[in-house]
Order: sequence, then C-alpha cells, then structure tokens
Amino acid sequence: MLIGKVVGSVVSTRKDEKLENLKLLVVQVHSHANEPKDAYVVAVDSVQAGLGDMVLYATGSSARQTTLTDAKPCDAVIMAVIDSWDLGGENVYEKWA
Amino acid sequence: MLIGKVVGSVVSTRKDEKLENLKLLVVQVHSHANEPKDAYVVAVDSVQAGLGDMVLYATGSSARQTTLTDAKPCDAVIMAVIDSWDLGGENVYEKWA
Amino acid sequence: MLIGKVVGSVVSTRKDEKLENLKLLVVQVHSHANEPKDAYVVAVDSVQAGLGDMVLYATGSSARQTTLTDAKPCDAVIMAVIDSWDLGGENVYEKWA
Amino acid sequence: MLIGKVVGSVVSTRKDEKLENLKLLVVQVHSHANEPKDAYVVAVDSVQAGLGDMVLYATGSSARQTTLTDAKPCDAVIMAVIDSWDLGGENVYEKWA
Amino acid sequence: MLIGKVVGSVVSTRKDEKLENLKLLVVQVHSHANEPKDAYVVAVDSVQAGLGDMVLYATGSSARQTTLTDAKPCDAVIMAVIDSWDLGGENVYEKWA
Repeated sequence: MLIGKVVGSVVSTRKDEKLENLKLLVVQVHSHANEPKDAYVVAVDSVQAGLGDMVLYATGSSARQTTLTDAKPCDAVIMAVIDSWDLGGENVYEKWA
Repeated sequence: MLIGKVVGSVVSTRKDEKLENLKLLVVQVHSHANEPKDAYVVAVDSVQAGLGDMVLYATGSSARQTTLTDAKPCDAVIMAVIDSWDLGGENVYEKWA
Repeated sequence: MLIGKVVGSVVSTRKDEKLENLKLLVVQVHSHANEPKDAYVVAVDSVQAGLGDMVLYATGSSARQTTLTDAKPCDAVIMAVIDSWDLGGENVYEKWA
Repeated sequence: MLIGKVVGSVVSTRKDEKLENLKLLVVQVHSHANEPKDAYVVAVDSVQAGLGDMVLYATGSSARQTTLTDAKPCDAVIMAVIDSWDLGGENVYEKWA
Repeated sequence: MLIGKVVGSVVSTRKDEKLENLKLLVVQVHSHANEPKDAYVVAVDSVQAGLGDMVLYATGSSARQTTLTDAKPCDAVIMAVIDSWDLGGENVYEKWA
C-alpha cells in the first residue's frame, strides 16, 4: 500500500456496468515523510473517505478484495483512512491534531 | 486507474484468437492536472471510446474483469469515458464544455 | 499492452519444465511515436513473431491467458503482430509499406 | 521481493473490516548494497518484525499468500526478517553483528 | 521476464512457514545489451542457479507457477538459467564461451 491524499473526484456516465454506484476519487501519492509526489491514482472509495483525508490505497488484484470491488474492473481501492503514522518513533501525521 | 486520452488505434491481423473483434486503442497517460505525460498504453476499449476522449483505464488482472475481456491476454482496458473531474473543488476537465 | 520490436532471442537449457518448447524473444519497448525506449522485456512468443516485427505484448497474469502460456511461470507474452497504428489520424507505422 | 527497513507504523480506525487486527508497517526500500532508496511501502507484518529490522516484502497477489493476509485488500506483506545477506561472497548485512 | 545476474543470497530464519527450504537469491537486473542496471530483486531459485549465472526471472503471480513456489508469498522466481542470447543476429552473451 502507499499513502495518499484525496484531492478530487471523477465523474463518468459511460462506463462498465459493474462500476455503477462506485465513487472514484483522485488520490495524490505522498512520501512516507508526507511530501506530495508527482504521481496519482484514481481509486474506488470503500471507506467513505473525504476531500483532504490521508488514506492508504491498494492496487492490482488486491484492489478487488473488498466487498465493494469484488470482480470489478478496478485496479486501485482506498481501504483505510489514516489516523496517524510515525517514523522512527516521531509522529509524522496526526488526523485530529 | 489512471486518466488518459485516446490518441490512436492499432491494427493487427496475426494475433491470439481470443483477441478477435476487440478494438485496441492507444491511450496517452495524463496527469491529474490534465497534462499529457511521456507514457502510453494500448488498451482494449470496452466502452466505445472515441478519438480525443478522456478515459479511465485499468491494468493487470483487473483489465480482465469486463465481459469483453474475460480470460483474454489483455492487461489494459478502458472501462470509463470521463465526463469531468475536479481537484480541490476546482473543475479540471469538462467533456461538454 | 505496450508496443515493442523483436530484437533478439534467448536460449536456455536449464529451465522450469513448463517452459519447454516455448520461444523466448527479446522485445525492445517503443514509444507510441515509434521511438525505441531504454527498456526491454523477454516474452514468450505465441504468434510466431519474427526478428524486426513490431508487436504488442501483455504482462503479468494476463500473459498466462494464451493456450501456450496457461499456468506457466511466464510474465510476458507477445499476443499480436502489429500491421499498423496511427496517432491523431496520421499513420505512424505500416508493416507492409 | 525487495529488501527494506522497518521505519515506522500506520494507525487507522476507519478501514475495510478485513484489515482488523493487522499491523501496518512503513518499510523504506533499500538497495542490495544496503543503501536506503527514495521509495517506501506500507506492508502488513506477518512475521512480527520490529522497528529497525531489515526485512523482505512481497507485493501484488503474492502478498495475499500468507495465512494472515489471505483474501484481504492488502498488496504488500513482510514475509521474512533478514538475518544476513551477501554479495559476491562478501557479507553486506548481519543482524547479530 | 527480465535478464539478471545472480550476485548474492539472503538468509532468514524468521519467515512465513511456506518459505521454508526455499533458496533466496539476489539478482542484479541487466539490460538486454548485458549492462548491469541500478535495480535488483530477491528471487526464489527454482533451477539451482549459481553465483554469477545469468538468469531469467518472472515476477508477480507468474512467480507462483513453478512447483516450488505454488501458493507461496513469493513475487519473483528464477525460472531459467541462460545459455546465450543475441540481438539482431549478434551474440551478446554465451555461458560456455
């Protein structure tokens, strides 16, 4: 998994029928030091993440292991909203700070 | 998934029999700010995308989860034509603008 | 899938038994504008491609979806020889030109 | 697999239910010469790794082949704590040195 | 698959039980022109490769298609020792030269 920030959303009407009712969010990848990187992914939201939330996303076949994404043409899923993380014992990010 | 623009198509006569009647499109990868990147993919079209359309594509085993691509030697599929997307509340792309 | 050019072949005697009788070709990756890139893959040939042919190859589990590669430890397969492709309506490559 | 160092951990309350009770560690990727690289992954810990341990992690569908991660939306798992490794007969890393 | 050179090995006592008795080798990735690249992988050896051997390795789910690696948390396997390869009809590498 990688850490990312929810920065937007995508709207699509003409899509594979299995994708109906799935929320597609734009996630900007962050480094483990919490710096934004020049990379993004569009991921299905399985945890009701909101704009600005720091999240974990999984890719590949693992992205189809949630109830919401099972057997769907989806290669990225947000499966956790991050509360906090630390590096070497130092807090790097704290959602409720 | 990543965002891309349909920029061309590929013709092949000698190919695996499972690929008969599949449309193969050249998709240029775009950043989430809608800038073209130096990367592309050739993807099976499952949503009748047209030249110039902004699309979402899925890769890996997830590319075989559409009815059209099931069990086929295909590692990329266009599974949505994008209507619009936004970043931080600002519209970045609008198909019908 | 990506576009590549067949530039060589690999010979191996000591290999997994499932790989017996598979032709292993060296494919140089090309850009969609048909420029050679600094990247390659060794792929199983499922379409009798020849030296110099422009081909499409699939990677990952999708590379095991041909009759030839089913259930084999192979992560790249050539599944199409390209006749031609175009970008923005302009022909980029034509096999029989 | 790649070699990495456990440098931190991630806490998440709102997550896919299948992820309950899994420890999520931040792993910094190292080169085979044991230099830290500018890359990381958040991986499920299946071997009770500790802060500072050098570990091996597997990604993709292979990350779901441990008892702990089976069928879960997890694309990276720590499946070994490294005792030592060598390059060209020279010891590069020794846990108990 | 990619071409690599066996440059070392990894020792681990605390690991997933499915990995018992598997040899873990450090493989440095080479270009198709046989130049070492700044990339490596730790792969399970399924063909009794030795230090200095040029090999082919497969990654992802394809790495679990050998008898040795079936259903194991392993994302890279050496499935062939290379005898020779050529580019454009010119020999690049010859094991027995």
